[in-house]
Amino acid sequence: MRTLHHHPLHPLSRVARVMLAEKGLPFDAVIEKPWERREDFLMLNPAGEPPVLVEEDGTVVAGGLPVLEYLEEAYPDVPLMPREVAARAEVRRIVDWFTRTFDREVTENLVGEKLIKRLSGQGHPYAPAIRAGLANIQYHMEYIAFLSERRPWLAGSSFTVADIAAAAALSCVDYVDNVPWDKVPEAKDWYARIKSRPSFRGLLTDSIPGCPPPRHYADLDF
Amino acid sequence: MRTLHHHPLHPLSRVARVMLAEKGLPFDAVIEKPWERREDFLMLNPAGEPPVLVEEDGTVVAGGLPVLEYLEEAYPDVPLMPREVAARAEVRRIVDWFTRTFDREVTENLVGEKLIKRLSGQGHPYAPAIRAGLANIQYHMEYIAFLSERRPWLAGSSFTVADIAAAAALSCVDYVDNVPWDKVPEAKDWYARIKSRPSFRGLLTDSIPGCPPPRHYADLDF
Repeated sequence: MRTLHHHPLHPLSRVARVMLAEKGLPFDAVIEKPWERREDFLMLNPAGEPPVLVEEDGTVVAGGLPVLEYLEEAYPDVPLMPREVAARAEVRRIVDWFTRTFDREVTENLVGEKLIKRLSGQGHPYAPAIRAGLANIQYHMEYIAFLSERRPWLAGSSFTVADIAAAAALSCVDYVDNVPWDKVPEAKDWYARIKSRPSFRGLLTDSIPGCPPPRHYADLDF
Repeated sequence: MRTLHHHPLHPLSRVARVMLAEKGLPFDAVIEKPWERREDFLMLNPAGEPPVLVEEDGTVVAGGLPVLEYLEEAYPDVPLMPREVAARAEVRRIVDWFTRTFDREVTENLVGEKLIKRLSGQGHPYAPAIRAGLANIQYHMEYIAFLSERRPWLAGSSFTVADIAAAAALSCVDYVDNVPWDKVPEAKDWYARIKSRPSFRGLLTDSIPGCPPPRHYADLDF
C-alpha cells in the first residue's frame, strides 16, 4: 500500500492528503512528528520535514512541493492544474503565496506558537508573534476575497491545487480558532465550498489528543 | 523582448537567469529592489518578490518556483529535469532543500545580514545570525559533497535545475566571501564544473555598487 508520512497540522501535509483523496488514491497515513527527528524518517527525507510519500514500488517522494508536483505528473487523470502553461504559472503563484508567504506571516505565528510549541515541548507561546499573526491573517483573507470575487476559483475557472493549498493553510489556523470568518464573508463562502468536498473530510475529523479543535471546525455550516 | 525582473543577490532570481541562459532564451534584465515595494512591480507580483518573468505576449510568471517550472514546461527543448516522474521528484527535493532550507539556515544569516540589510538601510548585521550562518554552511557543503561523490550531478546522472538551484544559492554566499571552499574539496569540484558553464557567466560579472565581490568570486580557478 502507498504510505503518506504527514503531520495533521502541517499545511503541505494537508495538501498531499486532499490531493490523494481528490485523485482517488488510497493510502496508509503515518503521523510524523518532525521535531522528534526520527532516524527512519530522516532516511526518507534528510530535510526531516513531512510530507513524504512512499509508493508501493518503493519510490520515495520527499517534501511538500515535490509531492504536489509528483501527484499531478504521475496521476493526471483527475487534473488539479489546468493544461495551459500560463494558467499553471498562476496556480503555482498562488500555491507559493499560501505555502510560503502565508506560512511565514500567519501559520508560524499562530499554529506554531499556540500548538506546535506545546506539542514539541518548546515552551510557551510568544505573545507578540500571536499578535502579528492575528493582524496578518486579515490581509490574507482579504486577498482570498479579492481573488474569489473575480474568478470562480482562486486561480481561475477550475478548482486547482491553488484552492487546496489556500484551504489547507487556513484549515490549520482554523484548528486553533484564529480565522476571522465573519469579517470576510467572501473568503468564508469560498472556504465553505471546499469544506464540503468529500476530499476534505479526512482533515475535518483530525483531533490531536489534549488539543481538540473548536466546535465549528468540522461544521459545514460554520 | 522577454523581461526578467530580478535581484542580483536573490538565489531564485539567479536560478531564473541561469535557466534562461541554458535554454538559449534572450531577455532584458531589470533589477528590482524588493524592499522598495515599487508599485508597478507589486502589480506584477503582489507578493513583492523577484523573480518575475514577463513574456513578449504579456504573459506574467511571478515567483521563483513558478518561473522555474514554467521555463521547464514552456521551453522543453533544452531539458533541465529528467523525464521520469520519480527522478523529477528527486530534482525537486534538492531544489526545495537549496531554495528553502539553505535559504533559512545560511543565506538569510549571511547575505541577509551582511549585504541586504545594508542595501536596504535596515541597520547593522546581527553577529549571532552571522555565526549561525557560518556554522550551518559547513553542513550544507558536506551534503553537496555527499551527493556529488555518489552521482555525476546532484540529483542524478544529468545536469539539472537541482545543480542550478544549489549553485545559485552558494554563489550568493560566495559574493560575501563566506563559502569555506577549501574545507570541502568535493563540493568545490562540483561548483567549479558549474562555474565554468557559459550560462553562469552573467552571475560572475555581477557587481553591486559600493559592495564589490571578493577577487576569487569570478575566478574559474578559485
